[in-house]
Amino acid sequence: MDDSNQADAPQPSAGRGGPTRSLDPKLLERILLQATTAPSEYNLQPWRFLVVRDERNRRRLRAASWNRPEIDRAPVVVIVLAHHFPFRTHLEPMLEQAIAAGSCSPEKAAEIRGRAVASLERPINHELWATRSTMLAAARLMWAAESLGVSSTMLEGSDALRPEFGIPDDHSICCLIALGHEPAPDPTPGRFGLDEVCFSEHFGQPWRA
Amino acid sequence: MDDSNQADAPQPSAGRGGPTRSLDPKLLERILLQATTAPSEYNLQPWRFLVVRDERNRRRLRAASWNRPEIDRAPVVVIVLAHHFPFRTHLEPMLEQAIAAGSCSPEKAAEIRGRAVASLERPINHELWATRSTMLAAARLMWAAESLGVSSTMLEGSDALRPEFGIPDDHSICCLIALGHEPAPDPTPGRFGLDEVCFSEHFGQPWRA
Repeated sequence: MDDSNQADAPQPSAGRGGPTRSLDPKLLERILLQATTAPSEYNLQPWRFLVVRDERNRRRLRAASWNRPEIDRAPVVVIVLAHHFPFRTHLEPMLEQAIAAGSCSPEKAAEIRGRAVASLERPINHELWATRSTMLAAARLMWAAESLGVSSTMLEGSDALRPEFGIPDDHSICCLIALGHEPAPDPTPGRFGLDEVCFSEHFGQPWRA
Repeated sequence: MDDSNQADAPQPSAGRGGPTRSLDPKLLERILLQATTAPSEYNLQPWRFLVVRDERNRRRLRAASWNRPEIDRAPVVVIVLAHHFPFRTHLEPMLEQAIAAGSCSPEKAAEIRGRAVASLERPINHELWATRSTMLAAARLMWAAESLGVSSTMLEGSDALRPEFGIPDDHSICCLIALGHEPAPDPTPGRFGLDEVCFSEHFGQPWRA
């Protein structure tokens, strides 16, 4: 998941790296709260954040993550998880909260309940379903960090983390976000233009503004 | 994918809705370009944006999308697609661009090529792989819109769109983003607290700042 401008970055020398600064817990909490404001289908919020700060745990995390040095250098690493079945446990609390917030009436809640159950108890790909919203939350987490002056790097997650951190099979490991390490140096590797990734009206039809 | 504060929103009356304002094409292009700055593994940029503005096409889009009224009300709807196999077609152009940008040397590019091919030609879940980065780009698209004063709503995509818009099977339909419609009314339905979605050090262990 990491951008290749991270992957391409030269490893910092021991002199440049130095000891990792810690991240203020209240600032971290603001970042996490911002992440939870992402949108999700039926507001079911399938994201879960496993926050690793303990030094010994970060070493275990690094060992189970292709030994990526960013993990050691960062004072905080968030393991971003997508819960496949939140509609089985979190639909009622969500609706109660929405009614309490004045966002919907009990009648409207009953209608949402019916639609959500009908839609999500079908044999759809629940992992993909949960991953979509969770990546929106991951993006929001990184942006909140950036807005608050905290650098971030997204890294690929590995299933080797499951036994280490007790992650159940119905939670996908979407990515890791290392917070508070040194930012990657410029220049970035660039991006494809809209002529490559954008179409007008029909797949394959060139983009024109 | 839509937030339930959208799903719960009362339908605007005919009087309130009125004719849809158009979206300046140059502003739309800025939003799309911002979306392409999202990070992706090996910088392979699996996102593709299919932009639908033509009124007849928006009607077809609505008919193939559970008849959601947001689609008619918005002057622009972006179908966000995740290309499962960009490493088979876009790895070399990406590396050439990175070398031209001074982001990596030809030697480093060869190393990245080797790692990318080894990693992505394995039997991994390529749909999930592509969806993760694409949802980061979708998040960035919505944020760029918001920063530029353009409202947005994310909606679920349907496979019924494939024949209508020529979308091939190796591109997942991640979501639709309706741009420029009227914003949804407050209040929002709220979100779960960190005690519900955030853990410290081990899965299931309560969050503490």
